[in-house]
Amino acid sequence: MQALPFSPRGFRSVAKNVGIRDETLDFTVIVSDVPASAAAMFTQSRFCGAPIIVGREHVANGQLQAFVINSKNANVATGEEGLANAREVVRLVAEELGIDPTDVLPSSTGVIGWQLPMHKIRQGIRGIAKELREGELHISAQAIMTTDTRPKIRACKIGNATLVGMAKGVGMIEPNMATMLSYFVTDARIDPKTLKECLHEAVAVSFNCLSVDTDTSTSDTVAIMANGLAGDVPLGEFRRALREMAIELTKDLASDGEGATKLLEVTVREAASYEQAKRVAKSVVNSPLVKTAVFGADPNWGRVAMAIGKCSEQEDIMPEKVTIAFGDLVVYQGQPLPQDRLPELKAYLQRSEVAIRISLGLGESAATVWGCDLSYEYVRINGEYTT
Amino acid sequence: MQALPFSPRGFRSVAKNVGIRDETLDFTVIVSDVPASAAAMFTQSRFCGAPIIVGREHVANGQLQAFVINSKNANVATGEEGLANAREVVRLVAEELGIDPTDVLPSSTGVIGWQLPMHKIRQGIRGIAKELREGELHISAQAIMTTDTRPKIRACKIGNATLVGMAKGVGMIEPNMATMLSYFVTDARIDPKTLKECLHEAVAVSFNCLSVDTDTSTSDTVAIMANGLAGDVPLGEFRRALREMAIELTKDLASDGEGATKLLEVTVREAASYEQAKRVAKSVVNSPLVKTAVFGADPNWGRVAMAIGKCSEQEDIMPEKVTIAFGDLVVYQGQPLPQDRLPELKAYLQRSEVAIRISLGLGESAATVWGCDLSYEYVRINGEYTT
Repeated sequence: MQALPFSPRGFRSVAKNVGIRDETLDFTVIVSDVPASAAAMFTQSRFCGAPIIVGREHVANGQLQAFVINSKNANVATGEEGLANAREVVRLVAEELGIDPTDVLPSSTGVIGWQLPMHKIRQGIRGIAKELREGELHISAQAIMTTDTRPKIRACKIGNATLVGMAKGVGMIEPNMATMLSYFVTDARIDPKTLKECLHEAVAVSFNCLSVDTDTSTSDTVAIMANGLAGDVPLGEFRRALREMAIELTKDLASDGEGATKLLEVTVREAASYEQAKRVAKSVVNSPLVKTAVFGADPNWGRVAMAIGKCSEQEDIMPEKVTIAFGDLVVYQGQPLPQDRLPELKAYLQRSEVAIRISLGLGESAATVWGCDLSYEYVRINGEYTT
Repeated sequence: MQALPFSPRGFRSVAKNVGIRDETLDFTVIVSDVPASAAAMFTQSRFCGAPIIVGREHVANGQLQAFVINSKNANVATGEEGLANAREVVRLVAEELGIDPTDVLPSSTGVIGWQLPMHKIRQGIRGIAKELREGELHISAQAIMTTDTRPKIRACKIGNATLVGMAKGVGMIEPNMATMLSYFVTDARIDPKTLKECLHEAVAVSFNCLSVDTDTSTSDTVAIMANGLAGDVPLGEFRRALREMAIELTKDLASDGEGATKLLEVTVREAASYEQAKRVAKSVVNSPLVKTAVFGADPNWGRVAMAIGKCSEQEDIMPEKVTIAFGDLVVYQGQPLPQDRLPELKAYLQRSEVAIRISLGLGESAATVWGCDLSYEYVRINGEYTT
């Protein structure tokens, strides 16, 4: 893993092994030299992790100074002991760094239902302030991985400022639960309210359009800190950069989905509303029968028709108005593609990126979502995890 | 496949190969000697098959005299040609049998997006009246199979009357789309309105509580004919028998789910409403992470917590009130099961029937749903189908 070509001013980090389950990187702290504007979005799960509860409290005032993240253990379904542990981690890190505990956002990702090994974590935090370095965010991107096969990190310049984003989720080796975590840091100066708007806008069209297996994590977190050390930037440009980076990271996650061999992009156009377009696109990208057909390069496009049809509450959808295409190959438009042309579809499905394009013929709204195929490897990974 | 121990009076059937795709049984007609009270329920898909459109019309008046069913081709997404073909099949069968075409309910199951090979079907229908036999419904149960590894058929006596039910769906060999078809015939005398009520009640707690892979078929059909030749029966007993038979057939379907190695039964109790209980139970039984853990006998019970939690619109669910058990082993009750007891869970998960029992601690409603594990075989079957 190479260092990034540039780093935002005033952010330092440390990534290390504290021994949560094995000897790989499992703990990281990312800290700003000064309190930063901040925003975060979390899982909607009713069984959310203890760090989510603490994180929601701490980001509420739009200011953070550090992220502290461990992998290998999600600290979920751990009752009051788990919540006390999350608060202790935050307090110990804040003490070491000499910052306010309410400016620390914690995250944990890994197995559900196991208590954190606090003796190891306490020992790992001791003296951590001296271990902080600039320009090492790429190592943090490794430390937050669980099932990932590769780190996902991006950097870009916006005028004088730098934006760095990282994400983790869905891999192999030690897979668990498709937990999605993503962190952005920038030295641009942006007020908390605007930052929150930018983040919500970016997440709506990126991470919230991603699905590997329909299973919502108990720990999903996307957070951003903007410490202002590079001064003002053109806001439109920042919005666009954040959105594009979030989409790139989303595609990185999808193509590294557990057992994935292919990136799947589904676009629905000519829908009556954005909600309808996204509902139908998600139904297709999540269909196990579509996902296995893509995996096997089986030209069984009828399964896309099935997945559109199962959105039974979308009463205005009419088969005679629907068009279904794979890339540029139209397979259904009121009539099915003749069977002698199925080999063209089979050839298209050999690609590593498969684009399914649907038009509903009802209106002018569109949505794009991302996912991956469903392979033997997904079953192996998830049938063998904890033991 | 053995003949049934008893048959309802006045029903005859034929099951044969007409060569739709190969040389296995692919066509069957089941006919009552007299017009029968009838009821049917169909897929909610917006992309439903042509036979569904015809079947809805024909059962609307509560009377049918025959079912005509082909496997290997679903006649879905086939446009106006497909609809004309479905109507022709019905007309030809009615002519051969000397009955009213509007008393025939057609079904097709198999690949989506291929036109029916009408020349073969026309030839197969010719002279079919002479091929009808009593006591051969068990052969019809074979002819409706696509991906099934075994036929599913049940028979019982209700007083003087007989009730026979058959179902198909979700197997291997030539798998496609988890299409569910089920037919019941009885010689009990029951008026159409009551019969419809009985069927809806039975389906609600049986087939509608089944999920193999969340993909709703374009062809799902459950239909019943009661020809009255055995006279009146105690209605309560009939209702109960139909409900129990539908649940038994549902469990037969689940345990023969594509690639399934284990039957999964999820019960949610102490819910605020039946809808909530069923919503949560479906979330658990459909979770690919729960299904792969059951397949691999991985004691990763935290995934059940995840699947409960992802019902994020169920805002009254509180982790501290939730109990999760596998069989009689409680794994979560405000606190997680200690890790040293996980081997007990692993041992339980070796069984061929796994029962997950959840209590929400919110009210008095309950629901039970059925499904199966997710195995390598599911991926193989569905990655290799049409070619």
